[in-house]
Amino acid sequence: MSLLVVGSVALDSVETPFGSNTDALGGSAVYFSHAACLLNPVQVVGVVGNDFPMDVLERLTSRGVDVSGVEQKDGESFRWKGKYSFDLQNRDTLETRLGVFADFNPEIPDRFREAEYVFLGNIDPALQLGVLDQIEKPKLVACDTMNYWIESKRDVLIDLLRRIDVLMINDSEARELSGDWNIYRAARWILQRGPKVAVIKQGEYGAVLVEQDRVFYVPAFPLEQVFDPTGAGDSFAGGFMAQVARTDDISPMNLRRAMVFGAAMGSFAVERFSTERFDEIGAAEVTARVREFAELVRFDVEPEVT
Amino acid sequence: MSLLVVGSVALDSVETPFGSNTDALGGSAVYFSHAACLLNPVQVVGVVGNDFPMDVLERLTSRGVDVSGVEQKDGESFRWKGKYSFDLQNRDTLETRLGVFADFNPEIPDRFREAEYVFLGNIDPALQLGVLDQIEKPKLVACDTMNYWIESKRDVLIDLLRRIDVLMINDSEARELSGDWNIYRAARWILQRGPKVAVIKQGEYGAVLVEQDRVFYVPAFPLEQVFDPTGAGDSFAGGFMAQVARTDDISPMNLRRAMVFGAAMGSFAVERFSTERFDEIGAAEVTARVREFAELVRFDVEPEVT
Repeated sequence: MSLLVVGSVALDSVETPFGSNTDALGGSAVYFSHAACLLNPVQVVGVVGNDFPMDVLERLTSRGVDVSGVEQKDGESFRWKGKYSFDLQNRDTLETRLGVFADFNPEIPDRFREAEYVFLGNIDPALQLGVLDQIEKPKLVACDTMNYWIESKRDVLIDLLRRIDVLMINDSEARELSGDWNIYRAARWILQRGPKVAVIKQGEYGAVLVEQDRVFYVPAFPLEQVFDPTGAGDSFAGGFMAQVARTDDISPMNLRRAMVFGAAMGSFAVERFSTERFDEIGAAEVTARVREFAELVRFDVEPEVT
Repeated sequence: MSLLVVGSVALDSVETPFGSNTDALGGSAVYFSHAACLLNPVQVVGVVGNDFPMDVLERLTSRGVDVSGVEQKDGESFRWKGKYSFDLQNRDTLETRLGVFADFNPEIPDRFREAEYVFLGNIDPALQLGVLDQIEKPKLVACDTMNYWIESKRDVLIDLLRRIDVLMINDSEARELSGDWNIYRAARWILQRGPKVAVIKQGEYGAVLVEQDRVFYVPAFPLEQVFDPTGAGDSFAGGFMAQVARTDDISPMNLRRAMVFGAAMGSFAVERFSTERFDEIGAAEVTARVREFAELVRFDVEPEVT
């Protein structure tokens, strides 16, 4: 089924305890696409400057990513520069240059307007609403946001909640949005405002899916080497949405599988700089990792306690 | 099978955002026993002062806890006073009065020396070693410790590791002990020093069991109301050890079940002050919660990605 992502396409410069890189592929739509295309074709809408290495982006075409919706404009590309602490637990943003992304006002090409599954990467919620106005009849819309919008565009964000199916955010964002430090109550707060599903990501620990009467937990994959945490959340979203799109199935059990595909993609993302790990893997590695997740939590229920 | 715990028996005064209590039952051996006795008889060795409400402790007898190894000495009981932050994420110790616990030198009564399963609660590792010298031939020994001993008695602690089967500690303790911030590498470090199993607890997130070639993860139970986190770790240990003892089974699959029983007991512990929740529940509630854990992580592996 068709899967559309609208989000940032950026050049990231990252310092980790293990090394650094400069102007590498980054941005929510880029991580999302790299993960999702392992499972399902992807349509991307975004904007870059005339300094962007379009040939690098176009390499994704052979993997089923339609990048024709990434507009190239006069000006600089969105650049982000960050530095992680020795334990990768914290990161400082050293520089953010929005460039042409500052005026991003996504126009969805006609050929993408029938998209059945839609992911709204972290941009101004007013623009996210604008995207939804251009999509005809999506089967499922998922959305990310960040503290900046929770603080500066709270009312618009709450309007947006009424129009999406899945809100996919970090625990700290869920806490700030709901004003409640308990993530399960925070999820309840979110469900009361529109979404049928809240996915709350807990970084190195895992992620939880909360529906009205169900909770599912997927731990983070046990990695002895985490190289660069950038993009884990968007890769998670890519795995989640692509599993839903490829199966065209939004049943509770398939949303659980989608969580596991998401966690698998998040774990690949952090194993190398930028999107590098996705260049090395294919369906076999994804299948193998999903099976490892099944093993990670496998136990049988004992005969009753007497 | 016989199950022995050696640890603190204390009077806790706790302030949480939801209320406070004074001189309530506390201590590692007390939480451990309350949880474990739901599954298997327990033998306790500890020390209290002559101010201790022995009748409260003796109520445990009817639940299969042998408290005859809790010695009452002249002096004050161990008292701990703590205050939790509004989100229960942090706690400050307001007061610690060791009383008779300062000179605790556990002597294991003859009738307990054939104990098959042994839990060494968090006390001086030199005393933990002394306990092991008095036990004839345990089938499995698990042990807790804390940052204080990691810093002040590191060499003794490392000697102790050679003589135990399961080290059960918090993630921050695993990091400090190993000098490695990655908990899976920290677990590997621990396994290289003796234990066959490292159980690393991650508080509100869950707990991980690491063996030489296997990892198992159990999330924390999704609670919308956490009342008092005190004793969660020792209750976890009680559930874990009692499941192993009642089944007399240290197979990998049963250690996984033990993790789930541990997580279930930890989740009960935090639902009320002190050990109060354990006074309300029986085998039926434990079985039900274990089944909820199975549901919490349940997913089927998809047909292969193609």
